[in-house]
Amino acid sequence: MTLTGNLLIGHTPVTGTRAAIHAVNPATGQALEPPYFGGSGEQVAQACALAWAAFDAYRETSLEQRAHFLETIAAQIEALGDALIDRAVAETGLPKARIQGERGRTCTQLRTFARVVRAGEWLDVRIDQALPERQPLPRSDLRQRQVALGPVAVFGASNFPLAFSVAGGDTASALAAGCPVVVKAHSAHPGTSELVGRALAQAAQQCGLPEGVFSLLYGAGHEVGIALVSDPRIQAVGFTGSRSGGMALRQAAQARPQPIPVYAEMSSINPVFLCNAALQARGEALAQGFVASLTQGAGQFCTNPGLVIARQGPALQRFISAASHHLQQAAAQTMLTPGIFSAYQAGVAALAENANAQPAASGQGSTGPNQCQAQLFVTQAEAFLADPALQGEVFGAASLLVACSSDAQVRQVAEHLEGQLTATLHLDEADIDSARALLPTLERKAGRLLVNGWPTGVEVCDAMVHGGPFPATTDARTTSVGTAAILRFLRPVCYQDFPDALLPQALQQANPLQLRRLLDGKREG
Amino acid sequence: MTLTGNLLIGHTPVTGTRAAIHAVNPATGQALEPPYFGGSGEQVAQACALAWAAFDAYRETSLEQRAHFLETIAAQIEALGDALIDRAVAETGLPKARIQGERGRTCTQLRTFARVVRAGEWLDVRIDQALPERQPLPRSDLRQRQVALGPVAVFGASNFPLAFSVAGGDTASALAAGCPVVVKAHSAHPGTSELVGRALAQAAQQCGLPEGVFSLLYGAGHEVGIALVSDPRIQAVGFTGSRSGGMALRQAAQARPQPIPVYAEMSSINPVFLCNAALQARGEALAQGFVASLTQGAGQFCTNPGLVIARQGPALQRFISAASHHLQQAAAQTMLTPGIFSAYQAGVAALAENANAQPAASGQGSTGPNQCQAQLFVTQAEAFLADPALQGEVFGAASLLVACSSDAQVRQVAEHLEGQLTATLHLDEADIDSARALLPTLERKAGRLLVNGWPTGVEVCDAMVHGGPFPATTDARTTSVGTAAILRFLRPVCYQDFPDALLPQALQQANPLQLRRLLDGKREG
Repeated sequence: MTLTGNLLIGHTPVTGTRAAIHAVNPATGQALEPPYFGGSGEQVAQACALAWAAFDAYRETSLEQRAHFLETIAAQIEALGDALIDRAVAETGLPKARIQGERGRTCTQLRTFARVVRAGEWLDVRIDQALPERQPLPRSDLRQRQVALGPVAVFGASNFPLAFSVAGGDTASALAAGCPVVVKAHSAHPGTSELVGRALAQAAQQCGLPEGVFSLLYGAGHEVGIALVSDPRIQAVGFTGSRSGGMALRQAAQARPQPIPVYAEMSSINPVFLCNAALQARGEALAQGFVASLTQGAGQFCTNPGLVIARQGPALQRFISAASHHLQQAAAQTMLTPGIFSAYQAGVAALAENANAQPAASGQGSTGPNQCQAQLFVTQAEAFLADPALQGEVFGAASLLVACSSDAQVRQVAEHLEGQLTATLHLDEADIDSARALLPTLERKAGRLLVNGWPTGVEVCDAMVHGGPFPATTDARTTSVGTAAILRFLRPVCYQDFPDALLPQALQQANPLQLRRLLDGKREG
Repeated sequence: MTLTGNLLIGHTPVTGTRAAIHAVNPATGQALEPPYFGGSGEQVAQACALAWAAFDAYRETSLEQRAHFLETIAAQIEALGDALIDRAVAETGLPKARIQGERGRTCTQLRTFARVVRAGEWLDVRIDQALPERQPLPRSDLRQRQVALGPVAVFGASNFPLAFSVAGGDTASALAAGCPVVVKAHSAHPGTSELVGRALAQAAQQCGLPEGVFSLLYGAGHEVGIALVSDPRIQAVGFTGSRSGGMALRQAAQARPQPIPVYAEMSSINPVFLCNAALQARGEALAQGFVASLTQGAGQFCTNPGLVIARQGPALQRFISAASHHLQQAAAQTMLTPGIFSAYQAGVAALAENANAQPAASGQGSTGPNQCQAQLFVTQAEAFLADPALQGEVFGAASLLVACSSDAQVRQVAEHLEGQLTATLHLDEADIDSARALLPTLERKAGRLLVNGWPTGVEVCDAMVHGGPFPATTDARTTSVGTAAILRFLRPVCYQDFPDALLPQALQQANPLQLRRLLDGKREG
């Protein structure tokens, strides 16, 4: 399983012609071979042209064929065996067990979308049959289904080298919807990307699909990504990463002659509210849970609890003491890339220099390169309300605790928050009323609300929402994790008075796909 | 039922402080009293503040309460009686029967959304129950529902003074979703808008709703509209009108610190393909149907057939002769506004001066002010492919016929089209194969595809799609007519491990709303 450093333009491996990137093992600081040369403008265009050529055929593959393709991708990824695990560990510094778990999650995700494709609910079939005798005017026969948007550009995320990268959630949901995918690999794990990309291309060949259904590009900087998003054949964008990266792609997508949707999951500090009775009754346990969630994976999760909000008083002091105690025990952990590490250092330094934030505790010091030392800061609600810098995301195991003087001030802080992926309430029976008073605000602020849990850990299921109001994402109407993610890549088309022979199967009168249609205003059983 | 010229800031009628607009009777050119003074920046902000204050309460009204509100609006509009009809006729120049029909459509639309609200499918309830014993990790209890986006800015359309104006499709679907609405009335029919606005405010009072659920603004130029879209409390925009107007609102929405979705339905020339056998067999009937659709309502429909595409030959010549004959009989009709009339004149003049387009026939000359004289032009496919000006929309009863040398060239012309609201095929049995070859292109180009019909006439039903790829709309993922329009104003929220008492009714375990939930991956019966 030798790595080649090649792009995949459809099934064809080719060497890029732009500047090369090397993966870096963040645990050692060493560059990893081979070099990955960036795709040229022409190579980007070739990938998009192939995707476009594949689109009409791919979007009309049968539900079974498409589901089988997704399952074949999962099998091909599993067939990569330890080569994939070893390379991903080397490129990310993440523990082997975590990468193995993530591989499982990635393959489960692909198989979950296979189930979704087969069930066909995403087609949202609506039929209003003709009413030729209706007065004053007859009604035509009208039938609606969802069709794929077109080729999708997917940007791999740094922090999920498998589950949100080449064959991750964006790719799986776009392919499920019937969209060819062109992936721009994250520069932090090009070897992992090549291996998964080859597995995906092999699955496409094995399933007899047009080769343009998948291509894989590399590139340093923003050049390749902007070229990809600007290509007229690309019809939507999936991205997980920084706010600046997401906003740059969004701007490029809006500047096109034909603007396209951008689904960028960008920035969230995931407020955790400690309600009074819960804080009183079990502050120590809460502190332990908090530090475990904060430091998991060196805090490199979009749903990391970067903000804690509670009423000041002795119970909160005990919580801060306990959390500080646990944090001080937390070992330093290797971060994903030197760039992420230095951004973390800069974010922590800015908080340390901010007169509005007091350092409460630091984790264990680092013993090697690129290691994240966990940090907890404390501030007062007035300062938090006055200083926008305190709401910035510090990607990594840093969190800020906001002490409030009253329940009303807790609500004021909640109302002051930007859009979030998650918001969490820790509550006991006696807190129900004050929690209920907070809920309308939190529903407006976040895509997922939790009670007595921690936001890290995102289940891939039907009910998951990994999304939320700006700047958590660029499109709060969707989710990037869970089965509803398929809806991002669809649009409705209505067929009026079509002869049955010209209708797509999903809309034919005999209902050959056995879908639960909305027929003349009634849902079929 | 005296008109006051007042804005409605919630329930309070107030006089605007910006420059006044007067409606003009386009049939006479006379200005109509009273003056409607534009809303000041402060008045726009007051309307938005009231909408924001109403939002949390309104979005949690019961399904029954909200449905009843929509039905009460319909009843209040009907109670306006002839005063509404007379004023709308005076302001638009449209025939009385058309306005009466449109009132019926508007009220049916409101009642249809009441049915949709009660059925509750739009809540899209998804529940994944806890799996505490699952290995390697337990699963939390996860429940998803849709919640309203927030206050919506709605811009009335000139060409549907009732059905796509103050209480039209955008307002009805936004209110159905649980969003307060601030309407910017179209300056062409402020009196009609005031009457409907008062009916709507009265319905809100009668139903005991917070007054901010609806406000009504006027304003000349773009100032009030841009202020409205830029207000931080507005969370989405519904617009039907010109491409330049829609794009200006979109740009304002994107320039906000928090960008918001804009649903602008803008520009479409609605290609009609005459397949060979159909053209051969029934060119005369097609010509008659075409001219009837083209000249209906002086061509002032978004779905007006502005482009006809067919293979050249004797059958097409016969069609052109017959269409010319019918067009020459078509009486001139008063257009909606002097501005629309002069834009039509300019569009027709540009085609007449374009060496690539040959005039084929003109309708009857005008007998009064602002009258639209129907026009048919002919061009060759090569010229059409080379000249983007020939794809511009001329709003009114003007159409361009594109003669192609082969079926392949027909497909080339189809592929060359911008995004459209509709595309129509006229076909006979022998045309099925060539129609099938065109379909993939048309599915990519348009939101609604018709066989053997005419695109004018848009049914309000579950299966309708009045939308389509840019520039037909700014968001091809939706429709602005039909029940699916409610989905534009919603976003998903997930509740994790919530105690039943804190859950919204839609998600409670006992299913008090009796919704068909997606429960552990299975749809309830």
